[in-house]
Amino acid sequence: MIVVMREGAGRQEIENVVARLREYGFSIHLSEGVERTIIGAIGEKKPIYLQSIEAMDGVEKLVPILEPYKLVSRSFQNDTTVVNVGSVTIGGPELVVMAGPCAVENEEQLFAAAKAVKEAGGHILRGGAFKPRTSPYSFQGLEEEGLKILAAARDEFGLPVVTEVVNPRDVELVEQYADMLQVGARNMQNFTLLREVGRSRLPVLLKRGLAATVEEWLMAAEYILSEGNMQVVLCERGIRTYETKTRNTLDISAVPLVKELGHLPIIVDPSHAAGRWRLVPSLAKAAVAAGADGIMVEVHPDPQHALSDGPQSLRPDHFKDLVDELKALAQVVGRKLVASGE
Amino acid sequence: MIVVMREGAGRQEIENVVARLREYGFSIHLSEGVERTIIGAIGEKKPIYLQSIEAMDGVEKLVPILEPYKLVSRSFQNDTTVVNVGSVTIGGPELVVMAGPCAVENEEQLFAAAKAVKEAGGHILRGGAFKPRTSPYSFQGLEEEGLKILAAARDEFGLPVVTEVVNPRDVELVEQYADMLQVGARNMQNFTLLREVGRSRLPVLLKRGLAATVEEWLMAAEYILSEGNMQVVLCERGIRTYETKTRNTLDISAVPLVKELGHLPIIVDPSHAAGRWRLVPSLAKAAVAAGADGIMVEVHPDPQHALSDGPQSLRPDHFKDLVDELKALAQVVGRKLVASGE
Amino acid sequence: MIVVMREGAGRQEIENVVARLREYGFSIHLSEGVERTIIGAIGEKKPIYLQSIEAMDGVEKLVPILEPYKLVSRSFQNDTTVVNVGSVTIGGPELVVMAGPCAVENEEQLFAAAKAVKEAGGHILRGGAFKPRTSPYSFQGLEEEGLKILAAARDEFGLPVVTEVVNPRDVELVEQYADMLQVGARNMQNFTLLREVGRSRLPVLLKRGLAATVEEWLMAAEYILSEGNMQVVLCERGIRTYETKTRNTLDISAVPLVKELGHLPIIVDPSHAAGRWRLVPSLAKAAVAAGADGIMVEVHPDPQHALSDGPQSLRPDHFKDLVDELKALAQVVGRKLVASGE
Amino acid sequence: MIVVMREGAGRQEIENVVARLREYGFSIHLSEGVERTIIGAIGEKKPIYLQSIEAMDGVEKLVPILEPYKLVSRSFQNDTTVVNVGSVTIGGPELVVMAGPCAVENEEQLFAAAKAVKEAGGHILRGGAFKPRTSPYSFQGLEEEGLKILAAARDEFGLPVVTEVVNPRDVELVEQYADMLQVGARNMQNFTLLREVGRSRLPVLLKRGLAATVEEWLMAAEYILSEGNMQVVLCERGIRTYETKTRNTLDISAVPLVKELGHLPIIVDPSHAAGRWRLVPSLAKAAVAAGADGIMVEVHPDPQHALSDGPQSLRPDHFKDLVDELKALAQVVGRKLVASGE
Repeated sequence: MIVVMREGAGRQEIENVVARLREYGFSIHLSEGVERTIIGAIGEKKPIYLQSIEAMDGVEKLVPILEPYKLVSRSFQNDTTVVNVGSVTIGGPELVVMAGPCAVENEEQLFAAAKAVKEAGGHILRGGAFKPRTSPYSFQGLEEEGLKILAAARDEFGLPVVTEVVNPRDVELVEQYADMLQVGARNMQNFTLLREVGRSRLPVLLKRGLAATVEEWLMAAEYILSEGNMQVVLCERGIRTYETKTRNTLDISAVPLVKELGHLPIIVDPSHAAGRWRLVPSLAKAAVAAGADGIMVEVHPDPQHALSDGPQSLRPDHFKDLVDELKALAQVVGRKLVASGE
Repeated sequence: MIVVMREGAGRQEIENVVARLREYGFSIHLSEGVERTIIGAIGEKKPIYLQSIEAMDGVEKLVPILEPYKLVSRSFQNDTTVVNVGSVTIGGPELVVMAGPCAVENEEQLFAAAKAVKEAGGHILRGGAFKPRTSPYSFQGLEEEGLKILAAARDEFGLPVVTEVVNPRDVELVEQYADMLQVGARNMQNFTLLREVGRSRLPVLLKRGLAATVEEWLMAAEYILSEGNMQVVLCERGIRTYETKTRNTLDISAVPLVKELGHLPIIVDPSHAAGRWRLVPSLAKAAVAAGADGIMVEVHPDPQHALSDGPQSLRPDHFKDLVDELKALAQVVGRKLVASGE
Repeated sequence: MIVVMREGAGRQEIENVVARLREYGFSIHLSEGVERTIIGAIGEKKPIYLQSIEAMDGVEKLVPILEPYKLVSRSFQNDTTVVNVGSVTIGGPELVVMAGPCAVENEEQLFAAAKAVKEAGGHILRGGAFKPRTSPYSFQGLEEEGLKILAAARDEFGLPVVTEVVNPRDVELVEQYADMLQVGARNMQNFTLLREVGRSRLPVLLKRGLAATVEEWLMAAEYILSEGNMQVVLCERGIRTYETKTRNTLDISAVPLVKELGHLPIIVDPSHAAGRWRLVPSLAKAAVAAGADGIMVEVHPDPQHALSDGPQSLRPDHFKDLVDELKALAQVVGRKLVASGE
Repeated sequence: MIVVMREGAGRQEIENVVARLREYGFSIHLSEGVERTIIGAIGEKKPIYLQSIEAMDGVEKLVPILEPYKLVSRSFQNDTTVVNVGSVTIGGPELVVMAGPCAVENEEQLFAAAKAVKEAGGHILRGGAFKPRTSPYSFQGLEEEGLKILAAARDEFGLPVVTEVVNPRDVELVEQYADMLQVGARNMQNFTLLREVGRSRLPVLLKRGLAATVEEWLMAAEYILSEGNMQVVLCERGIRTYETKTRNTLDISAVPLVKELGHLPIIVDPSHAAGRWRLVPSLAKAAVAAGADGIMVEVHPDPQHALSDGPQSLRPDHFKDLVDELKALAQVVGRKLVASGE
């Protein structure tokens, strides 16, 4: 860590900061320039106390040098983590396709979606039973009834299921039905929930928050890993910017960035990023070309009657076309996409 | 609501949309221009089904006309809501000053802070017992022990207390000690928590999310009101932008905007917006000049040793100066600031 | 256009708005709902006068229905424009690779870069002679001397050159040396410059502004087309967001979006988006997979001694690898990349 | 400057960086931690060469310590600059009110506006003759004819005038008529224009770019000062964020921040920030409370027929009320507002 002193900071102020840093166990390198003094602090970070140094007299700012995450970093573990969801692996050479409707609406709808996912070659079935909605008057999901339908679809079509959990209290319930727990964008910094899924035996899909930096996102993953659950997959789903012609702005750079900084697999959700199904195939292909370990797309048997996210859901035939395109693309970027039935 | 059809949308596509809108109970105004057809839909909105129309063939976009919130709007209730926190009122002619440390660290620290708040003329004591922190390795708060210290400070200094609740499960616990429940920025769309505090008998301070639009913020308040709790105070605390010299960007325009759109009181937290104490007094004064019903500032007896948010915490003497300045300012904007002891 | 009246707008206010719209040549559809009146205005837009309607008594807001651009839209011209830069075509089946250093530093450096671009199979040489720099103390470019070196490199290596023009007064000068004029991100709304290049006989590369919406970007292109120059290529180069780990955030969605809305070709500059060369290949591949008509990358013979943008410049060997990867990728997305020497 | 080496950087890589820094005239402090090496470089910055160091093998990042601006900083000049516009001073104890229409439309309109500004007590008349408009089909200003009307209004009402210049070529022309040159938000990084107004004998009003950081804004001012013109006033006018209910987001924190970092006066334009006149008075008062040296507001004799910016323009009566409120407010924040006629 570097402590930059204000221009004109006094001798006593500098000594106080040095003393405090030594008290915290740092060894000190002092650089006294013409304009200002800079204090290098080497040693073990104790983040709990550090921020207060910035409040000391004469201090202009702290410049952290080390990244704040540990367990998620490449320094901690160099090999990419491979996450197992039922018999599907994420993070290895094979690309994974997660697909399904935004919300489980009823058995007929989910089974039709699951059939389409299976036939197109998708690997994991998604569908929400607990829906975080901006409006209290919007459809909020079928809750446990939805979980039961998901589990039935898994048994019928042989696809592991991923579904969102929004309340720490429901983790145990969702575990009974699902193969992977999803933490949604709005809950990325719901630290109680993060700790709770960190104690689960199931793998976790951690979506990036709408306004989360890559660093905050990795810190959210760190919460889960620090509770003992190392099976985490990151999901980039678009961030909030000033552009209004798309629902969010897909931060495609996050894919290579997250792979450079850490060892967790990353997939991309082009549906929530785009907000309109016509843009989804282009973004899905971009994701695979950029090195993502898979994608998660919304597929609905009848988007025109969907209870949520209809405009961004692919019809089964468009989804089938997309999977076929991704198969060809996977090969030229050194991956492969093996259809679930193959 | 307006449905804009794509250029070249076919006769059948238009008829399908009209039929669907009629099915949902709308009456229809059809405007067929040279370039495209526009369908005006008048009547009761049923938001649950609307989004799917945007997925219909030939539809370019939906343009909502009415605001999505109801209970929080000026149309629903024209008079500004007055919220009661202990004997303090928020939303009336008197400005309210909430102050205290970011986190309750121990009895000595909190009592020193409470004493400073009281002596300067502040009205409500703030302090966190459950701290949502970006890093799992940062200080997370004293939990129930912190609540007890808060309650003791209230009894000692006669200041009602506001404190954050982060887990729906803890609402009942926090209610036993606090006078007002705070929902933090990171939980603004934690809908489970919103519903839970909506069932509380205590007033709620609802902070704006880091990347929440004013509309989403009002919808979050709508969740609370729709559960029956009408005692909600909004708190603008800065939004996330590209500017890095401040922790967040205080959206001062939100103050008059929220007052135009709705009837809930609004206060401003300049400490989290600025991230540096030197900017806090200017922002606090701006808030009052813009029409805010009060402010919430971080005050710490010894910022240089604070366990969190030291750099943005005011020392007691600076806080005292600020309250004095606000007293003078209140008068010229048609409000008054009556010190808690007066 | 839709005019939404305020709740409770009076009869006279509505009639005034209707009268004004009729005066401007619109035909009117009036929808009087329970809560508010909505006025549909059909007919030719005269944008010069419209904004003032929003200032009329009783008006809540205007909702434009038609896009504000005309000449750049798919409605105006359905076929994708093919732009010719020397013997290179952009917008047809072949992908184009533009590459070269940020700035022309001297003949030796530019010729080394040009040689690398040529040998790797790139098509167009880039290099700045006029550099818009944030600091007045940074290297500002060689100006006309730089243009001469560019022209010499073109003659030596047979690569057409694209270079930025920053001052309307210099357009004529740059035209003497270059094959394509670049309007940089900071000048995207320098309307004087846009008009000036709109009168040029050379094709124009129009970079997206750091904070420009897609609509504003297309309107900037509209300025150029409205002066008679239809040979415009758009270039997405990243937008400004709150994320700090990349220089900008590449808005990959802009690629399919711009192709849906308009007929101009679009290329992607992954170098300025990423700000770090390690991320460049992933983003370049994502761009091609998303449907871009080409890429523009910074290549420097010795990035460690570059006068600008060293950290984001590819070395010749990395650039060669990238072009080879793009060749394979082009095929699976229905394009082809023919090396300049082939 | 601090150079942070990558984890595992080799001995030779470190030595190469040290050698390069010494070559540039820095003295070196080496801190070798357990995890990585940090190199402190003390001495005169030569920004022209620095960026390339980040491209050296083994380097992770550069951390600049000193601010990049010099002439605009408080270190360079501790006293606040006082700018003279005709007989009006900006930056002293008196608050300045600049007001007038967005665009000069004709003599009648401008004289009516000037009369209103004068009668309400405003000090400087604003009005655009060259209008940078998003659409090429919008009203673009009266150009020299507009300048003549402005000059006539100055003579008639005794108010100095400020008007925008958008083309470097027009600076000389505008100087003949105006008392202050305005550089608009879209031209904040039009460096050719900045240099040109830097050579003018007139004071300059420099608006902040829509997506400019405070640092970039100060660097733009540095361009002007570095050409010899020290008479620069900064103008905060709102930045671009994701919020859509206001035209821009007024960054009120910029006021105290700019005053802390530099010595130039700063005013606030609440009209462009809000985009709607109803919000303007609240924001204007917030600006003064936060410490701004003045405001610039749009006033139009008949906003309902304005050729541009009607919705955000104040009517003369509302403007008069605002000036009266600001007079009272000025006193309690230690300033005074002396009406132009007093």
